[in-house]
Amino acid sequence: MLESLPQIPLGVSSNAEYLLALFVLLVAAKVGEEVCRRIRQPVVAGEIVAGVIVGPSVLGWAELSDVTDVFAELGVVFLLFWVGLETRLSDLTSVGRTSAKVAVLGVVLPVAAGFGFGEALGESTATSLFIGAALAATSVGITSAILVEFKHVNTPAGRTILGAAVIDDVLALVLLAMATALAASGSIDVGELMLLLAVSFGFVAFFAFGGTRLLRNRPQILDAPHFAESPLLPAVILCLGLAVLAAEIGLAAVIGAFLAGLMVAETKEQNAIETEIAPLYAFFAPFFFASIGAQVDLAQFSDSYVLWVGAAITAIAVITKFAGAWIGARALGARDAVTVGIGMVPRGEVGIIVAGIGYAEGVIDPQLFAVVIGMSLFTTLIAPPLLKRSLSERAR
Amino acid sequence: MLESLPQIPLGVSSNAEYLLALFVLLVAAKVGEEVCRRIRQPVVAGEIVAGVIVGPSVLGWAELSDVTDVFAELGVVFLLFWVGLETRLSDLTSVGRTSAKVAVLGVVLPVAAGFGFGEALGESTATSLFIGAALAATSVGITSAILVEFKHVNTPAGRTILGAAVIDDVLALVLLAMATALAASGSIDVGELMLLLAVSFGFVAFFAFGGTRLLRNRPQILDAPHFAESPLLPAVILCLGLAVLAAEIGLAAVIGAFLAGLMVAETKEQNAIETEIAPLYAFFAPFFFASIGAQVDLAQFSDSYVLWVGAAITAIAVITKFAGAWIGARALGARDAVTVGIGMVPRGEVGIIVAGIGYAEGVIDPQLFAVVIGMSLFTTLIAPPLLKRSLSERAR
Repeated sequence: MLESLPQIPLGVSSNAEYLLALFVLLVAAKVGEEVCRRIRQPVVAGEIVAGVIVGPSVLGWAELSDVTDVFAELGVVFLLFWVGLETRLSDLTSVGRTSAKVAVLGVVLPVAAGFGFGEALGESTATSLFIGAALAATSVGITSAILVEFKHVNTPAGRTILGAAVIDDVLALVLLAMATALAASGSIDVGELMLLLAVSFGFVAFFAFGGTRLLRNRPQILDAPHFAESPLLPAVILCLGLAVLAAEIGLAAVIGAFLAGLMVAETKEQNAIETEIAPLYAFFAPFFFASIGAQVDLAQFSDSYVLWVGAAITAIAVITKFAGAWIGARALGARDAVTVGIGMVPRGEVGIIVAGIGYAEGVIDPQLFAVVIGMSLFTTLIAPPLLKRSLSERAR
Repeated sequence: MLESLPQIPLGVSSNAEYLLALFVLLVAAKVGEEVCRRIRQPVVAGEIVAGVIVGPSVLGWAELSDVTDVFAELGVVFLLFWVGLETRLSDLTSVGRTSAKVAVLGVVLPVAAGFGFGEALGESTATSLFIGAALAATSVGITSAILVEFKHVNTPAGRTILGAAVIDDVLALVLLAMATALAASGSIDVGELMLLLAVSFGFVAFFAFGGTRLLRNRPQILDAPHFAESPLLPAVILCLGLAVLAAEIGLAAVIGAFLAGLMVAETKEQNAIETEIAPLYAFFAPFFFASIGAQVDLAQFSDSYVLWVGAAITAIAVITKFAGAWIGARALGARDAVTVGIGMVPRGEVGIIVAGIGYAEGVIDPQLFAVVIGMSLFTTLIAPPLLKRSLSERAR
């Protein structure tokens, strides 16, 4: 009956389709979460699977767009800001050496194996390097969500994973720059890469050390006399500002958000801001997880090449990341090393983005693209239950 | 120096431009708010003026897009949801007659005057009807924000304004449908209009009476045993769902959000949800006000036709809306009638949207479009300081 009405957008209702897509993703994520809670599985997995179901592969109810992308991005930005708020810089530096080892070994092994696998398949050097780069970076968003869900942000293993994920993202950025340069111009400018490395580490170090010190010396900076109402928006502005800056350099926006959280954690308003950020995180984060699921095109996996190469790359992705991170984290003891190893496995949105860039550059074909998407999804879905088991074994 | 780096989007950083636009709007709105707070003016006006300044007219820093539109829309959706949470249906029905009189007189006078003015200028019937329709509807978002800022949601005048703004929106929808039909086909189908009127009032009545009764009889429906975590997301889902439904009918999305708030106000979780919605409102609302400002193109007002016709239409808009609403609200006493009269004046985004539709239909030319934008902005900026004065006189 509604169709017979004249179509008149009053209100700002030309936005209605976007609101509808957000509504569908939110309902799906919530239903997936409730189902997983009842069958005692990590809720993150439920939100991703729900995204697959309402996505184009199955029901086709949720239409992804720039709008849903921005909501997804803000979901993981507010998540990492919240994680930063829960973290003290000194906790990170106390596990700094271990984090660095985990990050480097956890990047070198998967990249080498992925590159070698590409070469063995007879792919070009640029294509093989893209495969390696797609295996490099851990999704700090997925891993953080699991650590938050299991209340493990503030453990040695949790801190090691967080620190390693940040370093890992910088290394992956440099790898991606190499792969892109090779695909675009056929050669790699070493000077440019060193500059990129220096700027990225400089950005992280400047805000992690300088930023936290600045706010530690002025813990009242966000207090009431300066801002008549709550300190929420000044904190959100800092978070968005550093997220944009990180993205401008080429790092993940979430790295900036995490640094902003580390800084605000030094102020007196830390608790008030944590309480107020929680609803923002609760609202935005489901879009992040459901969007990852909704990007999957299940039809691709009926292709036997995609299936077999996908299975092989996924096995390589899991084993090499686990092994590299586990070796790097042995100083924490056998159990924590296993937790760190599993925690670094999920590639989440990062693998998907790297593959998307390779696809745009013309060195990743549609089949390889599907393979990498499958690998990203599988490593993301397998980590939460394994991590849950590893953490509950520790608890005994 | 950053420009010399290879441009590599890692993370989901292809969203970086959108995040940057959101960052600029948020910072501008916050600065405008602080300035207004220090000079003791309503903060809403500061956020709108800040939007004008960062918009294309002056600095050109904030790029509006579908993304900023959706953020603006959610700002006013969460605002009206919050206002609904603060309102009891019985409070609205107790001033129902007065609200209806305010709405009808506050629509009839401006529409008649606007239509007559268009005819006097020698415009076509369709164009004159669009001018009338643009003068019809009060921006419930702007008015609600002012009522919230001055803590006047729960006064007879506040409730009258809210109820009238809802009825007003339904009447404006029907007028817009008439104007659009006339512009598109040259004739008006009375049967279709009656259907539209019936569906719109039916939607409002169904959720206002049936929906609130349903939740009043099941006040525990959002409680913990059903939803393991906070009741925030189920409430947000209801809010978005009704907002989408209202928009599908053709009403403003905010009407649906307000009805959802009225319903949730009947549950036991009302307080918890109010506390958790507040950060969402605080985050999103600045985009609504700053976007209104950023849509203004100041260059248009150097045209003397735009300036004079604009001044005349603005005077008509202010005087007729005030007079209609004031006559309708006389039963509340002289002072409250003045408050209601001023409170109904702001046209905000509604006038802009009506003019935009007329522009798309080809019956509003660029000059008239600029005139209506100017009228919407001026009525929106003039109301907060006048309302503040009227409320503080009452307080004495």
